[in-house]
Amino acid sequence: PDYAIGQEAQRRLDSLTKPQGSLGRLEDIAKQLCIIRGGAAKLAQPKPAAAVFAADHGVAAGGVSAYPQEVTQQMIYNFLAGGAGINVLCRQAGADVWVIDVGVAGDMSQAQGLIQAKVAHGTADMTKGPVMTMNQALDAIVVGAQTAQRLIEKGYDLLIPGEMGIGNTTPCSAITAVICGLRPEQVMGRGTGVDDAGLSRKLAALKTALDVNKPDPANPLEVLCKVGGLEIAAMCGYILEAAARGVPVMLDGFISTTAALVAGGLCPTAIDYCFSGHGSVEIGHRAQLEKLGLRPILTLEMRLGEGTGAAVAMNVLRAAVAIYSEMATFAEAGVTGH
Amino acid sequence: PDYAIGQEAQRRLDSLTKPQGSLGRLEDIAKQLCIIRGGAAKLAQPKPAAAVFAADHGVAAGGVSAYPQEVTQQMIYNFLAGGAGINVLCRQAGADVWVIDVGVAGDMSQAQGLIQAKVAHGTADMTKGPVMTMNQALDAIVVGAQTAQRLIEKGYDLLIPGEMGIGNTTPCSAITAVICGLRPEQVMGRGTGVDDAGLSRKLAALKTALDVNKPDPANPLEVLCKVGGLEIAAMCGYILEAAARGVPVMLDGFISTTAALVAGGLCPTAIDYCFSGHGSVEIGHRAQLEKLGLRPILTLEMRLGEGTGAAVAMNVLRAAVAIYSEMATFAEAGVTGH
Repeated sequence: PDYAIGQEAQRRLDSLTKPQGSLGRLEDIAKQLCIIRGGAAKLAQPKPAAAVFAADHGVAAGGVSAYPQEVTQQMIYNFLAGGAGINVLCRQAGADVWVIDVGVAGDMSQAQGLIQAKVAHGTADMTKGPVMTMNQALDAIVVGAQTAQRLIEKGYDLLIPGEMGIGNTTPCSAITAVICGLRPEQVMGRGTGVDDAGLSRKLAALKTALDVNKPDPANPLEVLCKVGGLEIAAMCGYILEAAARGVPVMLDGFISTTAALVAGGLCPTAIDYCFSGHGSVEIGHRAQLEKLGLRPILTLEMRLGEGTGAAVAMNVLRAAVAIYSEMATFAEAGVTGH
Repeated sequence: PDYAIGQEAQRRLDSLTKPQGSLGRLEDIAKQLCIIRGGAAKLAQPKPAAAVFAADHGVAAGGVSAYPQEVTQQMIYNFLAGGAGINVLCRQAGADVWVIDVGVAGDMSQAQGLIQAKVAHGTADMTKGPVMTMNQALDAIVVGAQTAQRLIEKGYDLLIPGEMGIGNTTPCSAITAVICGLRPEQVMGRGTGVDDAGLSRKLAALKTALDVNKPDPANPLEVLCKVGGLEIAAMCGYILEAAARGVPVMLDGFISTTAALVAGGLCPTAIDYCFSGHGSVEIGHRAQLEKLGLRPILTLEMRLGEGTGAAVAMNVLRAAVAIYSEMATFAEAGVTGH
């Protein structure tokens, strides 16, 4: 990114008919978009897409989630039929939804409209050893990168990472604990709403997984292989590819920011292309955002995942683009400025 | 409002394909809209309008603002030409803008498209005595109520109170200090961006105004007459009329919530029809929200006024309406629920 463009964008923002800085974070968002797009001329409204990467998790067998594993597959059919939260919120925000099987435990080959890119039938149980091989992790990263590439070739110019995978707050808590150097208790929440007994099982699973695997915080790929997930790896590749192509990314909450944590470990400048859409209820999300130097645009107490918080935040980004490109300047409007 | 409808709406929300409560405040907003509209069936997307009430303030002569009084008139022409922040953000959110002269100091009779409803050529200086007579305050309230009535008759079903009036954070700080029982320092900020010298003048003006006028906190109309403003009175009438007709109101920040404070003093149930769109940088806004029991939907460090924060928040309300009406239920999607 070229930060001189940021100064030029700030001059334009300061020329608009409003007290300087009075549009707050809308101005910051517009400026960051100018920097990412490489120009301070008027911004066009983005054409966004959400890629929902689906995968299953061996650890789900240990009862760490409020839902059974079959819900991953059921929800994929819901995505494909357009009835899930991510579909509705993307429609409302003018974004398209693409669904990718990167690691669902079960045959999804007949699902109409699903992008078939299965690397494995779910991961192994992290409490017993590494959840996947290095080759599997790399394959999943490539699935994510190729998805970003295809979406960009289709004309999308803002990418939302989305996900579905029953049990996936557990690997995300594990990755966050390792990379942020925190204890499991400090980064673990109720996910989709596990009860107290489930929460105890989740904490025990996390502790065992970290004990058994001892992932090296300095090696993000090793962390992915040992305590990660296939959809997390895919989202990591998706974010890296978007950034490499100069395309902005709107992160959602705890799961997608885990992928950003891994992506940032592999390539720190990738984070310059990321916006944080929504600050999750999951406590681990705060540690992630601090580590990455990101601030969420919205805080609406959402904890659904799928990419839904990012979809809602797209509206605010659209508002930022609109003010940057459509407001009159002091000179144009004949208003007395400072 | 009928709170049994809220329970029915909650049952519908809990039947949708997501963990219960996982859409956070989107669910609360949908539920409140159901209660206001009086039914838990699917919600239609609203047709919103913003009414921007413009007026001038005698106290502006004392240098309490970063801008000269002439900017009120200049900005009205900017609103009418569609180039101001409120125009751009309302367009982005699918809302129309109407502009009303309720008390501009100067002849605006030739302004095309401006709704002519001038009650006085600005208010008097609050540091010398009451800013307006009781008749003027009541006339301005009627202007606001009639505006709401006309907009509702035109088919709008969600109303945003907007405003323009150089110097108007000073009367709003005065009203807030009186009604919330706080000292001027506790409710006063930089408004559109006054410097340190201006801030001292503003504080001195506020203290003098409260000393000279001694408004009775228990009498909201007296507070309006002594230290209020014509656009604040109009917004108060606008909110009361919307609530009386069962139409939801999306409040903006410090100025429009001041009007809600007066409206709530006159008719507490009016606040049940209000959403708080944006939590302002102005410190007095927090005291107002606490008094009214409202929580802002957005916190984007905006401090422009005009109704802009409410316009951005309309997008979130639209997202809430969309999830309530368009998401599939567990039964419809064949997903295993709790």
